[in-house]
Amino acid sequence: MSNHIESRLEELGCRLPPAPTPVGSYGPVTRIGNLAVTSGQIPMVEGKVRTPGKVGAELGEQQGYELARICALNALAQLKACVGDLDRIARIVRVEGYIRSADGFTGQANVTNGASDLLNELYGAEEKHTRIAIGANELPGGAAVEISVWAEVTD
Amino acid sequence: MSNHIESRLEELGCRLPPAPTPVGSYGPVTRIGNLAVTSGQIPMVEGKVRTPGKVGAELGEQQGYELARICALNALAQLKACVGDLDRIARIVRVEGYIRSADGFTGQANVTNGASDLLNELYGAEEKHTRIAIGANELPGGAAVEISVWAEVTD
Amino acid sequence: MSNHIESRLEELGCRLPPAPTPVGSYGPVTRIGNLAVTSGQIPMVEGKVRTPGKVGAELGEQQGYELARICALNALAQLKACVGDLDRIARIVRVEGYIRSADGFTGQANVTNGASDLLNELYGAEEKHTRIAIGANELPGGAAVEISVWAEVTD
Repeated sequence: MSNHIESRLEELGCRLPPAPTPVGSYGPVTRIGNLAVTSGQIPMVEGKVRTPGKVGAELGEQQGYELARICALNALAQLKACVGDLDRIARIVRVEGYIRSADGFTGQANVTNGASDLLNELYGAEEKHTRIAIGANELPGGAAVEISVWAEVTD
Repeated sequence: MSNHIESRLEELGCRLPPAPTPVGSYGPVTRIGNLAVTSGQIPMVEGKVRTPGKVGAELGEQQGYELARICALNALAQLKACVGDLDRIARIVRVEGYIRSADGFTGQANVTNGASDLLNELYGAEEKHTRIAIGANELPGGAAVEISVWAEVTD
Repeated sequence: MSNHIESRLEELGCRLPPAPTPVGSYGPVTRIGNLAVTSGQIPMVEGKVRTPGKVGAELGEQQGYELARICALNALAQLKACVGDLDRIARIVRVEGYIRSADGFTGQANVTNGASDLLNELYGAEEKHTRIAIGANELPGGAAVEISVWAEVTD
């Protein structure tokens, strides 16, 4: 009955990682009524930033896309740790994508799609989330992508 | 009786554009209760990014201001498409302004005023919206400005 | 009875500054139900930006940390001016930290801790706020840090 979203993740070949530990004086998710907002997630994999670099220099756009997907998985892991079950997420409200960009790289939207596409595959694409996609010259730990997710929780 | 805001727009010499199509896997506006949040709007005009470039290099501060105004018009077009009538917007809550900046350009606040001034002219300046104004080395499609608007909707 | 938070600030050797005047066409704080969101606060001290520069170039990480703390104090001053008493803030919900970064500086999380640590000292660290920490090549007025704070207000 339950764990519909996690079954869907498995079908997509994704594994929900352990929820990453925040790298500063803050928490992973805050609730404001039915809204759950994650901290910015970087592509931490087993405690290390996966392939630090700038998209458009050391990293190509497709690599950035894959890293954004990892960030979204980390955000889902944080949301699950907060609400107990990803099936309690009614919909994704907003995605904030910050892309560490080499000068001259303007594909921030394509990179952020790595997070958006996964979230749409899981939660349906009819009522799509909104989004910002922004370039940054630097990000914490040299991460290529940072993603924050807003989600609506059902009671 | 109705369309007070659109009359005001006309008086200001502005025309509401067709709501731009999102350039990725996301939607134009999400609602959370009475709050409507737009995706980041770049200065799309008839399907093309108007004058790509960096403010402080190819573009001057005043050009950036005009582009921020175009972004705000696009945000209003998205809000109208979502709620049906701009008179249903009770107030503007927050403006997020991301300015693609040449190194050494620090006039992000003046550029973002292009959006804020228009929104204040339409919705009154007594209870002003809050705002962030941030520089970015790059933005999607080489756009000089990206603006996201939070608005409160009346029932 | 009252002013518990301001006594705590005094114990920490901090003085609440006068609420800075916004440097554009916007207001200091907006309320959406119980949520209060500040505009981006830069390290204004007595009407001037304290030590403009880039962290990782003119400014070291520890200086950035101190500037983030000043931004948080300015945000608290704005919140007090809005709600009347900092004891009416139930908790800090989210901190947005934008760090003007020299190329190659990746300590944005450590710098943003300057705001987070102060807010945790005041409002308790059990239910920590969430956070984004983002690099920017430029910020308004050459400020090294810009911080926006979301807070929950009790009735």
